[in-house]
Amino acid sequence: MDLTPLRTKHPEHWQKAAAIRALALDAVHAANSGHSGMPMGMADLATVLFEKHLKFDASAPDWADRDRFILSNGHGSMLLYALLYLVGDPEITLEEVKNFRQWGAKTAGHPENFLARAIETTTGPLGQGIANAVGFAIAEEALRARFGKRLVDHHTYVFAGDGCLMEGVSHEAISLAGRQQLSRLIVLWDNNNITIDGTVDIADATDQPARFRAAGWEVIEIDGHDPEQIDAALTKAKSSSQPSMIACKTHIALGHAAQDTSKGHGALTDPDQLVAAKAAYGWTGGPFEVPADIKSAWEAIGARGAEARKAWQERFDALTDRRQAEFTRVMTGGVPKQLAGTIRALKKQAAENAPKVATRASSEMVLEVINPIMPETIGGSADLTGSNNTKTGDLGIFLPEDRKGRYIHYGVREHGMAAAMNGMALHGGIRPYGGTFMCFTDYARPSMRLAALMKVPTVFVMTHDSIGLGEDGPTHQPVEHLAMLRATPNMNVFRPADTVETAEAWELALQSTETPTVLSLTRQGLPTVRTEYKQKNLTAQGAYVLAEAQNKRQVILIATGSEVALALKAREMLEADGIGTRVVSMPCMELFAAQDESYRRKVLPAGPVRVGIEAAVQQGWERWLLGERGREAKAGFVGMDSFGASAPAGELFEKFGITAEATVAKVKDLLG
Amino acid sequence: MDLTPLRTKHPEHWQKAAAIRALALDAVHAANSGHSGMPMGMADLATVLFEKHLKFDASAPDWADRDRFILSNGHGSMLLYALLYLVGDPEITLEEVKNFRQWGAKTAGHPENFLARAIETTTGPLGQGIANAVGFAIAEEALRARFGKRLVDHHTYVFAGDGCLMEGVSHEAISLAGRQQLSRLIVLWDNNNITIDGTVDIADATDQPARFRAAGWEVIEIDGHDPEQIDAALTKAKSSSQPSMIACKTHIALGHAAQDTSKGHGALTDPDQLVAAKAAYGWTGGPFEVPADIKSAWEAIGARGAEARKAWQERFDALTDRRQAEFTRVMTGGVPKQLAGTIRALKKQAAENAPKVATRASSEMVLEVINPIMPETIGGSADLTGSNNTKTGDLGIFLPEDRKGRYIHYGVREHGMAAAMNGMALHGGIRPYGGTFMCFTDYARPSMRLAALMKVPTVFVMTHDSIGLGEDGPTHQPVEHLAMLRATPNMNVFRPADTVETAEAWELALQSTETPTVLSLTRQGLPTVRTEYKQKNLTAQGAYVLAEAQNKRQVILIATGSEVALALKAREMLEADGIGTRVVSMPCMELFAAQDESYRRKVLPAGPVRVGIEAAVQQGWERWLLGERGREAKAGFVGMDSFGASAPAGELFEKFGITAEATVAKVKDLLG
Repeated sequence: MDLTPLRTKHPEHWQKAAAIRALALDAVHAANSGHSGMPMGMADLATVLFEKHLKFDASAPDWADRDRFILSNGHGSMLLYALLYLVGDPEITLEEVKNFRQWGAKTAGHPENFLARAIETTTGPLGQGIANAVGFAIAEEALRARFGKRLVDHHTYVFAGDGCLMEGVSHEAISLAGRQQLSRLIVLWDNNNITIDGTVDIADATDQPARFRAAGWEVIEIDGHDPEQIDAALTKAKSSSQPSMIACKTHIALGHAAQDTSKGHGALTDPDQLVAAKAAYGWTGGPFEVPADIKSAWEAIGARGAEARKAWQERFDALTDRRQAEFTRVMTGGVPKQLAGTIRALKKQAAENAPKVATRASSEMVLEVINPIMPETIGGSADLTGSNNTKTGDLGIFLPEDRKGRYIHYGVREHGMAAAMNGMALHGGIRPYGGTFMCFTDYARPSMRLAALMKVPTVFVMTHDSIGLGEDGPTHQPVEHLAMLRATPNMNVFRPADTVETAEAWELALQSTETPTVLSLTRQGLPTVRTEYKQKNLTAQGAYVLAEAQNKRQVILIATGSEVALALKAREMLEADGIGTRVVSMPCMELFAAQDESYRRKVLPAGPVRVGIEAAVQQGWERWLLGERGREAKAGFVGMDSFGASAPAGELFEKFGITAEATVAKVKDLLG
Repeated sequence: MDLTPLRTKHPEHWQKAAAIRALALDAVHAANSGHSGMPMGMADLATVLFEKHLKFDASAPDWADRDRFILSNGHGSMLLYALLYLVGDPEITLEEVKNFRQWGAKTAGHPENFLARAIETTTGPLGQGIANAVGFAIAEEALRARFGKRLVDHHTYVFAGDGCLMEGVSHEAISLAGRQQLSRLIVLWDNNNITIDGTVDIADATDQPARFRAAGWEVIEIDGHDPEQIDAALTKAKSSSQPSMIACKTHIALGHAAQDTSKGHGALTDPDQLVAAKAAYGWTGGPFEVPADIKSAWEAIGARGAEARKAWQERFDALTDRRQAEFTRVMTGGVPKQLAGTIRALKKQAAENAPKVATRASSEMVLEVINPIMPETIGGSADLTGSNNTKTGDLGIFLPEDRKGRYIHYGVREHGMAAAMNGMALHGGIRPYGGTFMCFTDYARPSMRLAALMKVPTVFVMTHDSIGLGEDGPTHQPVEHLAMLRATPNMNVFRPADTVETAEAWELALQSTETPTVLSLTRQGLPTVRTEYKQKNLTAQGAYVLAEAQNKRQVILIATGSEVALALKAREMLEADGIGTRVVSMPCMELFAAQDESYRRKVLPAGPVRVGIEAAVQQGWERWLLGERGREAKAGFVGMDSFGASAPAGELFEKFGITAEATVAKVKDLLG
């Protein structure tokens, strides 16, 4: 393709965009891996966005009121790194660009939010960025409603490719955004008609503009290489009352021999073709070299927002101390001072009243006291509000007509909900929690993993956490999900036994700043097991001695959640037979593993027979049953080793042998 | 709502539909749980479909050329059970209907395919049915192309609700169906404007007809209670060259006090309201009682297809024996006689040539010999064909213009691919396999779980199975996925070490009739470790002694996949130090667990120090390391305990300490 018309019509624009393209080519060439074609195809879009529209100050990448820029097609990460280096981001230096995809570099293969402040989210798994962006836009609306436009007034821009739009989560994201009329959300679709396997039409014939319109979006179709069209489209999108999708016709790997082909999607490392592409751009700089005038022009773009930021800072400084402190608190994820006392009061009350309720209802009790003192919470459910017990009285419904509403009806969109919650947490200022059935963590799984990887404290309220769900049957009964979640690094999985432990788990979830939380909660009613009030948060240690042996200790029963009461019942039966039995409640294996060894040994001393009880598969339990070094104890497990079945819950526990009687039999068998 | 106009205009139709409604009310009332509203809302649609369009013979629910009827909104299971009882299905008797949702009943809370032959698929997790249906329709097209219209000529009908259409997987399904112009696929959308949380508009404002049209579907909008409109729409849909969506305006819980409300979605058990609803229907039968004339009318519907089936049988009987046998073989999932010899020949060749290739390339070698002898395979990839090595030369591309093509470009739709593959396997006649990156099992997870629950032998080809993926970084590097898959009941997870084990794993995958298979394959090249040819399929035992100790046995190294070669290297180093070391290759933990205890003890005798090596988290390994009873061995693990990072693969193995040197150090530490 002859680039002359593009080069000559807007020469200054062209040079700036060419700098992105050249850097992308050089970095991928040096790494001998990566994706050159997307940055080359979207460079014009990025240049106009950064030069004319994006509100940011390169020197302050964490300015709270910056526009957010999200690269949903994260494989094109060099686009982002090139932009950040060019505008003078303090973290993405030229050295980092040269170290693209190398050990220790901030310029990872795909953008990772925890490596540099200007990287808003972690992308690569397709569709996640666009779905996070819905959360970013919700957070902006909610904070603007709460703190006013003088403090919060920005947009969320998303670059997305064909892959993002094919992923199912994109449907959940765009239909949620359309319903919510998130007018500050602007998606630029890289309509290059190329995927890894070939042209898009081998797999897809979707009329994307019609699809977005059907979801309630404004759609603008442009030539993605024409800076005037790009500018006009962004201006129009910003003034729309709907979310906007700009369909940008582009050429992947523009100007390279691989332009408009699948090959152009990947790493373009042929040296001759690289030289030829740079020549076609009229690029004179050597490898990683950006001529001074072009770098200056980019740095001027990076400084463009400095004044706006200064003005914002002045507005912020003019606030009362209290208002400033509150804004800072929520943006940094701090908890209010009253939290500890509020949780303690609830624990005391629960220990005294000893309610027999499902832990999902316990969770609602906690939310009833938390939500009033933490205006930063935004709750929701994937269309199971009454079952997940996620809605408290005072929240209001978040909708276009009420941006102060703090409850979101996410619809039947577990994945979109999880991704949006991650976006809110990443944006800052919001503490998102959302519910569905534990079994449907399956649907939300890609975003739950990313919460852990991204180090965001999203709270997943997962109810109906075992065969205790009953008649809905095996499609709705988790058996392997606790194992799956516990296998995931940096994820705290709580399975509280009663209202007291649920309150403790919630306190820990809200105190977390870098780890997501899963609350595994029952459908069925459970007795209160923590009837003696203790101020200390025992759940924080992951496991603790709930009931000590009365006879000589021969057995330790370790249980979680709904099975703790069962363990206590088995203990009574064993003690009646003279068999001393300790019961350990283990609401969070991850936190227990994080305790020092002496504490762990105190709770689980070597010697006594150990039996674990959990209405789920055994995987993940062995460390606690067999001992951390093996050789420590004879051990058994009472739980599931198959899918469940459809029948009343009580009958299922009987049929699958998860009972006090079965536990006693297992213990006696092990004692020999 | 006054039902008189409906009752009087088509009285015979009305009575038949009322039978469904009455049975649904009675069964939910008896179970005191379930979902009454959907069967009451969709009864007219079901009645017209079964009476006038659905090709089936109730007496032969597994007739190969029947139309498939899929209840994607599976919570309305009583609709299906009522229909099956009414038409005289041999398995869903009145007794079963009365036992709705009870232990041991075939009438589970949600339809479960393995409980009765007429239940085509397991639904309940929303969106799965409609996505399965795409696979059913693909299977029909492929088999029609292969065996001819006289043998294969049917439709796939889907009932779907708002929840199904909100789920992301519905987007992947409908866009794939649209591209593939699956004209035999007809979806009836229960447009009742109600979800659990309220009216649909609290969460969604999608223009569904426009959305389906954008995806390439024919859309017909009707009153879902008007039998004439329903009939006409079905006739039109059947003649369309596109997949069809019939948008049916319905009233949930029609005629009940809870009509058109969220309450109507669930269990309607109030006895007075139940009586009132039946009165509104003009229903005179007692509980579970269907007047004889109405039952006869339904049984006539059930017998309607008997002649067509007889004619089909005659056409089948007229085929050559060979053709009959082949059709029967593929429909029952048998493997061809040549399979064993073909696999053995490949194993022999690989043992002799000892190629150093990635196991994803080994998998391609296997497919190159399997696909020619198994015309029932349909391969594909979620837009990673070149990376997953799933395409062999002879397959052709499945597209509207080539229904004999056996390779599907699924697009970036891991979830839709998995669900469609399950549909093909359920339909019968097809052996589906499909690939993506191991990390993106996350996206496919809901359908992978269902494959296990439904007992279908879908094959998931998951490549790039560890940090060995390298520079793409932690978003693309599985660490917890093996644990997650192994935790799932009825799923065989193979992590083969070389071409020989890969061939053995594929053989087992193809022989499986009730268990799905995950092949965990490397990106990076691996040496052949099975250089001594053995006819026996050693992988079938799950684990085996690959190399015996030469010095006195003090150590057993247990490894999988890419880490087996590393274990062999560590063994050499240990033996050089006089430390006798056995290496056990463990390609499939599930199959090893299924061996008898004496074999397991032979492979893993008590005594020697054990070290497991796998570039993944330890969870799931303890049973083999610590011993099945604990107390057996001092043990250690060389693997991951965090997410990965972006860097070249070799460097990552060094940095994360997954090396022969680290293994030797761990062993020496344990030996003390």
